[in-house]
Amino acid sequence: MPDVAVSRVEHFNAAHRLYVPEWSDETNANIFGKCSNPNFHGHNYMLIVKVTGEPDETTGFVIDLKLLSDIIKQEVLMRFDHKNLNLDTSEFKQINPTAENIAIAIYNLLRSKIAPALQLKITLYETERNFVEYPAS
Amino acid sequence: MPDVAVSRVEHFNAAHRLYVPEWSDETNANIFGKCSNPNFHGHNYMLIVKVTGEPDETTGFVIDLKLLSDIIKQEVLMRFDHKNLNLDTSEFKQINPTAENIAIAIYNLLRSKIAPALQLKITLYETERNFVEYPAS
Amino acid sequence: MPDVAVSRVEHFNAAHRLYVPEWSDETNANIFGKCSNPNFHGHNYMLIVKVTGEPDETTGFVIDLKLLSDIIKQEVLMRFDHKNLNLDTSEFKQINPTAENIAIAIYNLLRSKIAPALQLKITLYETERNFVEYPAS
Amino acid sequence: MPDVAVSRVEHFNAAHRLYVPEWSDETNANIFGKCSNPNFHGHNYMLIVKVTGEPDETTGFVIDLKLLSDIIKQEVLMRFDHKNLNLDTSEFKQINPTAENIAIAIYNLLRSKIAPALQLKITLYETERNFVEYPAS
Amino acid sequence: MPDVAVSRVEHFNAAHRLYVPEWSDETNANIFGKCSNPNFHGHNYMLIVKVTGEPDETTGFVIDLKLLSDIIKQEVLMRFDHKNLNLDTSEFKQINPTAENIAIAIYNLLRSKIAPALQLKITLYETERNFVEYPAS
Amino acid sequence: MPDVAVSRVEHFNAAHRLYVPEWSDETNANIFGKCSNPNFHGHNYMLIVKVTGEPDETTGFVIDLKLLSDIIKQEVLMRFDHKNLNLDTSEFKQINPTAENIAIAIYNLLRSKIAPALQLKITLYETERNFVEYPAS
Repeated sequence: MPDVAVSRVEHFNAAHRLYVPEWSDETNANIFGKCSNPNFHGHNYMLIVKVTGEPDETTGFVIDLKLLSDIIKQEVLMRFDHKNLNLDTSEFKQINPTAENIAIAIYNLLRSKIAPALQLKITLYETERNFVEYPAS
Repeated sequence: MPDVAVSRVEHFNAAHRLYVPEWSDETNANIFGKCSNPNFHGHNYMLIVKVTGEPDETTGFVIDLKLLSDIIKQEVLMRFDHKNLNLDTSEFKQINPTAENIAIAIYNLLRSKIAPALQLKITLYETERNFVEYPAS
Repeated sequence: MPDVAVSRVEHFNAAHRLYVPEWSDETNANIFGKCSNPNFHGHNYMLIVKVTGEPDETTGFVIDLKLLSDIIKQEVLMRFDHKNLNLDTSEFKQINPTAENIAIAIYNLLRSKIAPALQLKITLYETERNFVEYPAS
Repeated sequence: MPDVAVSRVEHFNAAHRLYVPEWSDETNANIFGKCSNPNFHGHNYMLIVKVTGEPDETTGFVIDLKLLSDIIKQEVLMRFDHKNLNLDTSEFKQINPTAENIAIAIYNLLRSKIAPALQLKITLYETERNFVEYPAS
Repeated sequence: MPDVAVSRVEHFNAAHRLYVPEWSDETNANIFGKCSNPNFHGHNYMLIVKVTGEPDETTGFVIDLKLLSDIIKQEVLMRFDHKNLNLDTSEFKQINPTAENIAIAIYNLLRSKIAPALQLKITLYETERNFVEYPAS
Repeated sequence: MPDVAVSRVEHFNAAHRLYVPEWSDETNANIFGKCSNPNFHGHNYMLIVKVTGEPDETTGFVIDLKLLSDIIKQEVLMRFDHKNLNLDTSEFKQINPTAENIAIAIYNLLRSKIAPALQLKITLYETERNFVEYPAS
């Protein structure tokens, strides 16, 4: 029987700035445009965490979505919600906080908290019109 | 040439209760929390049915979405809309009506009504923030 | 200076049945159709609570939306979320749980918890396509 | 004949911090919670500008929504989009950038750019679940 | 006791062209831009019909939303859905099919079908970002 | 390390008619129903363009979404927005403008503008309830 995927949607609000420290301010402005504003800007991020596996025969759950929501709150929202991603977190000290890199960081934060038999996928909306998925397939 | 997928979105409203009959009420309450309220609660389910195949050379359709909508109404909405999934349906007499199990039941109801050359996938939103997919890939 | 309105969106999931106890089952079925299914059906209700008044000169708040959210959780969600509105609540023992009557009940539950100088308005979505407002203006 | 209202939806992304300079950091943290994080957080603001009046007999327009969109971009988005509302704008040097105060500021920026015979109303979503209206009626 | 408002959301898809027949093609293009493309373009219109009054003491309904939906389908959708508003309807032979004028036409089509004691208001979305209301208040 | 997918959402409004020129008007009406109205109808199309690959180590971008948006505007929106797909475009002179065929046409317009190392996928919503994906997997 094929696997089932279950997904939980969560939200967080954060400030960030796209910025490569090895580059001059002028190069950062050329490459990242207004996303490199030195005083930061911010987003309401919408996060979708998908967990794929076999439903338990008795409960019918792949994973209890209440439990998944608690794990996301503990591991992701407590770190990133109402924070400045560049200044207040350890994840983006050396890494540019693009949507791609935030999605990879969230995957890495969650992977060890989900049973290894279950697959994990992250979808992150930076705005209603820009979003990323990791892993892509 | 790669296949094309077409999807139709439908809605139904139903009551349910998460409940394993072999368990005591206390165990059901511990595992399923307020989702096990003995008097039921309910949802506006959003259902997405995806059909994948080769578009017909003349019409340009993989499947006529009006026809697909009629099949979903006949096979799924007439069974589940404005019903109590635990009490009013045969599908969830022995099986816990989790979103996972409802998606699998909908797949099984529709599979024989869609031409075998076409692939079928079900996505079911229980709330805006909890949804499932079957098969997962 | 004109007043400012602030709104908070919350959600709850409940079962209900439209039903007038003085009527026969046949009359209930004729008037309320499948909404009168004896075993109940359910909805994801979306609730918007609007509070109107003058923003505080120092804080800039009409009302702290975190506080408003807590009041709604305490007064409305604890009563109605994951409940059967007909069987599990005192509000709909004698009154038909139409969206209109649920909105009026929520207004009455919240009115005394909000400062009298502030105006209150309830908007309640029963589905994405059916919603009510009280008071209307 | 009654008036007609036309509305245009726009979006901007900004960083901000709720903060009263006359208060200690401790008081700011007590009153504004995580919204007072010193390194800022941010939002995708959704802005709805409503203009009410009589449609022109020939064109059928109350106001050309393309023109209204251009005015909003010129007056509001160029000031606030991808900015830090506390540091990068003159409007919130002395005023706390709550959603209420941002809506009032946007009203004041737009009022003189819209013909006096037309009424103006601002709706501002800070998140999907928190929004404000000015003037309230 | 204040009145209650109930609203029903419906959708229709139509082609149109903004065009004043007394004007030259050049003037039409200058004023209406690409909305005046001679071969038409089209929209998915979202229509919200709001009816305001006193709920019936027994049923709890201001108006049965199933009945309201049927009236809208009969009077509006059968006229406008999958039609060319300029060519296929009598309403826009002499009148420019702006969102403002379509909302007024819908109001006029529905007004006599709704009991006179009930107030009526039309909201029409031409796109997700452009919408109109009639009457405005 | 797995690939990352980034997506950009754009919108366009167009008129179309489903129609096979080799068929009689009667056959077209039988097969395509009201979608074959000779005077056309129209839609607000929502287009999602997904690009999959490895993020650049320095910028953290798979592709700059501002650049992707510009490519979509240049190649797709300038061709299709506010146009009659049957009459105003070369793509649908011989091919029925079903959602399936529009998605394939958009894929073909964009494929050569995106670096060959990157995968491309098109999702096209014709209405909120009907959408297609190409390639399907």
